[in-house]
Amino acid sequence: MATMSTFFTKTSFPSHSLRKSQISHFAPAHTLSIKPKTAHFNVRIRAALIEPDGGKLTELFVEKSLTDVKKREALSLPRIKLSRIDLQWVHVLSEGWASPLAGFMRESEFLQTLHFNSLRLDDGSVVNMSVPIVLAIDDDQKQRVGGCTRVALVDSDDNTVAILSDIEIYKHPKEERIARTWGTTAPGLPYVDQAITNAGNWLIGGDLEVIEPIKYHDGLDRFRLSPAQLRQEFTKRNADAVFAFQLRNPVHNGHALLMTDTRRRLLEMGYKNPILLLHPLGGYTKADDVPLSWRMKQHEKVLEDGVLDPETTVVSIFPSPMHYAGPTEVQWHAKARINAGANFYIVGRDPAGMSHPVEKRDLYDADHGKKVLSMAPGLERLNILPFKVAAYDKTQGKMAFFDPSRPQDFLFISGTKMRTLAKNKENPPDGFMCPGGWQVLVEYYDSLSPFTDNSKVPEPVPA
Amino acid sequence: MATMSTFFTKTSFPSHSLRKSQISHFAPAHTLSIKPKTAHFNVRIRAALIEPDGGKLTELFVEKSLTDVKKREALSLPRIKLSRIDLQWVHVLSEGWASPLAGFMRESEFLQTLHFNSLRLDDGSVVNMSVPIVLAIDDDQKQRVGGCTRVALVDSDDNTVAILSDIEIYKHPKEERIARTWGTTAPGLPYVDQAITNAGNWLIGGDLEVIEPIKYHDGLDRFRLSPAQLRQEFTKRNADAVFAFQLRNPVHNGHALLMTDTRRRLLEMGYKNPILLLHPLGGYTKADDVPLSWRMKQHEKVLEDGVLDPETTVVSIFPSPMHYAGPTEVQWHAKARINAGANFYIVGRDPAGMSHPVEKRDLYDADHGKKVLSMAPGLERLNILPFKVAAYDKTQGKMAFFDPSRPQDFLFISGTKMRTLAKNKENPPDGFMCPGGWQVLVEYYDSLSPFTDNSKVPEPVPA
Repeated sequence: MATMSTFFTKTSFPSHSLRKSQISHFAPAHTLSIKPKTAHFNVRIRAALIEPDGGKLTELFVEKSLTDVKKREALSLPRIKLSRIDLQWVHVLSEGWASPLAGFMRESEFLQTLHFNSLRLDDGSVVNMSVPIVLAIDDDQKQRVGGCTRVALVDSDDNTVAILSDIEIYKHPKEERIARTWGTTAPGLPYVDQAITNAGNWLIGGDLEVIEPIKYHDGLDRFRLSPAQLRQEFTKRNADAVFAFQLRNPVHNGHALLMTDTRRRLLEMGYKNPILLLHPLGGYTKADDVPLSWRMKQHEKVLEDGVLDPETTVVSIFPSPMHYAGPTEVQWHAKARINAGANFYIVGRDPAGMSHPVEKRDLYDADHGKKVLSMAPGLERLNILPFKVAAYDKTQGKMAFFDPSRPQDFLFISGTKMRTLAKNKENPPDGFMCPGGWQVLVEYYDSLSPFTDNSKVPEPVPA
Repeated sequence: MATMSTFFTKTSFPSHSLRKSQISHFAPAHTLSIKPKTAHFNVRIRAALIEPDGGKLTELFVEKSLTDVKKREALSLPRIKLSRIDLQWVHVLSEGWASPLAGFMRESEFLQTLHFNSLRLDDGSVVNMSVPIVLAIDDDQKQRVGGCTRVALVDSDDNTVAILSDIEIYKHPKEERIARTWGTTAPGLPYVDQAITNAGNWLIGGDLEVIEPIKYHDGLDRFRLSPAQLRQEFTKRNADAVFAFQLRNPVHNGHALLMTDTRRRLLEMGYKNPILLLHPLGGYTKADDVPLSWRMKQHEKVLEDGVLDPETTVVSIFPSPMHYAGPTEVQWHAKARINAGANFYIVGRDPAGMSHPVEKRDLYDADHGKKVLSMAPGLERLNILPFKVAAYDKTQGKMAFFDPSRPQDFLFISGTKMRTLAKNKENPPDGFMCPGGWQVLVEYYDSLSPFTDNSKVPEPVPA
């Protein structure tokens, strides 16, 4: 699996609000020697990491020397304003998480994604691609684009973000897109409500040239390592296996146990230096999920607590928005991590799942995610590690793998139960989560509405 | 592409209502020397036909010598009663149209079908499989099966049809199945209303052993050639290319022009003897489609008229039920024809499409079918021939390929227009369809309700 990977450094990290001591276990401040102001410096690194899909990372940044030229060119092009979620997809595409995708999908890629969850490349090989990465425009925008072959993509302040070239405009079959991606068209799917229902009736695909790396200036940009940066980090650490853990929830000791145990198993398999990529999702999440900034604070506390070994753990933010599309989306989560260098992927019960928005049941069968993932086209190279069930073992006073021979000794603490405890400022059993991490959760719920009912969830923020 | 194909003769043809002279252009009566009473006679034939999916036709019949043993065994097993559509799927599976599928889908096959429209085989190769071929059972039936590993499948008269072995029972996620297969969950999808909505909440998969070839005793069984029989026929005719034309509507001269023109193009490409498989769908169709028996009468008349050359045409019935699932279903239609030996497939505008059951538009984009088909995993070996648009050329008084330089000369006669004319006993323009074929259509609509309003469509027949 030896491969040549290209390292592409980003702009220097902005100052941030977290104290240095708090982030000592986090990769960028600790071990990644980023060279400030050397953006677009390309070096080749020999690494034993899994190859990116399509053979190389498809980074879509404009050459530094051409930035001004492209910015000027953009001023003469029709403009399309990006929503917050659109911008997150530009981020995802620009860094090559969706390699070998070179921009927003054209119709042939969109159709392959919907029908086959995969793309066939020119050489006949197949890569996984399960969620449509598309840009919607409305009738007016379509008319303004007219016969142009290039458009400028701008942010909410009209700053040029990217140029989309060799464009193709095609119909946005919303109902079909929703049905084939989520396996339901029931009203109330968070991503659908946020990014599809009111989106335009057309999709515009094309090749993307991104002017500058996407930054959010929220104090967390330095944790947003690109696949190339992560690959460099894994290579520096001499990783001979990288196992990814996708999460969008606070980490409890059951997760930590699982990650530690996975490393132990990989060592038993003969790997000398397996590295954990602890990879919280940083894009759009639904209103009742814990926001990224609070989750990052919680993850830090958990790492400070020493449950996970900082020498063998890289914490970084995955910039993708969340679909909550269960078995369809878990493939995207896994595929993107291949591009970042992971060759092992931990998959749990009902990954990327949620409750059915209308019926009183889970939207997806809890086992379908891991089954679909294990059979998905284009993911044959990835080793799928099914999640073992951890629960609170009352006899040991700590999280442990569930032992079916003595079920009476175990306590299952669901996400709902956890949130209710934190909202009510109650403590979970000792050993469920480190006290510092728990305190962050309590503070988060406390911050939501200090003078009124704490059980209310915040309103969604427009994308 | 040379392959060894197995020929498996069926039981002798029953007597039928069509006069011999009328069927002179049809394959079985004309050129296939079927040996009555020699069912289960296996011979090997060397043929230059495209290989079946998975390398060989998966026929699922019980060895003749074991028929009685299996029938006795079936009496001791839990019974599952098959609906009319279930029986059509047993037929499809038994003859290997869905090769290499060995029975009703287990969950892993069902999930791959829904998510990937394809199955990965043990050797890593991929075959197309886009529609779930599943058997639903209800809670009572599931309970009756209990811990058994085998069940008997019986017809409406309780005759044993097949044994299903090494069974797996899993949840029937109806909403998800519908959404992922049709790209909508709107009420009013014909197959869904007929075969899914009221079906059981469980699916039962397993290996199928079919006691005897499925017969319908409707005078048309002799036209239901299995893939093996079709392969034998193509081999006998020394076909070096087989081009399939799927249809579920009456044939007009535009279709005939297209088929004739396709043969001409194949000859130009260097093939010496391209054979047309004119292959009307014979399973479940929606209530306002023309029924199979009338379509077969119409096809005969068209062939009698000599528009298609009987020497290079094989007419046979495809036993599959119809999903009306557009781009998803057209893959199934194409894949099944590979198994029957076709290496060219003609695809038209909006294949397997219909109107949206609720909204005032077509359910699928008219071009998606051919686009999806051309990119579908497992169909790389099949040559897709896009349909040219034929219309009535008023200057020539016949059907011709549409010439965009003189649109005013062409008349498009839609299916709806054709049906309205036939219902009202009016004639289409001379040259649209041979008079004998048109007369069959007029007779069909006349037969529906001779004393009342002819425009009413018949009620659906329960499956």
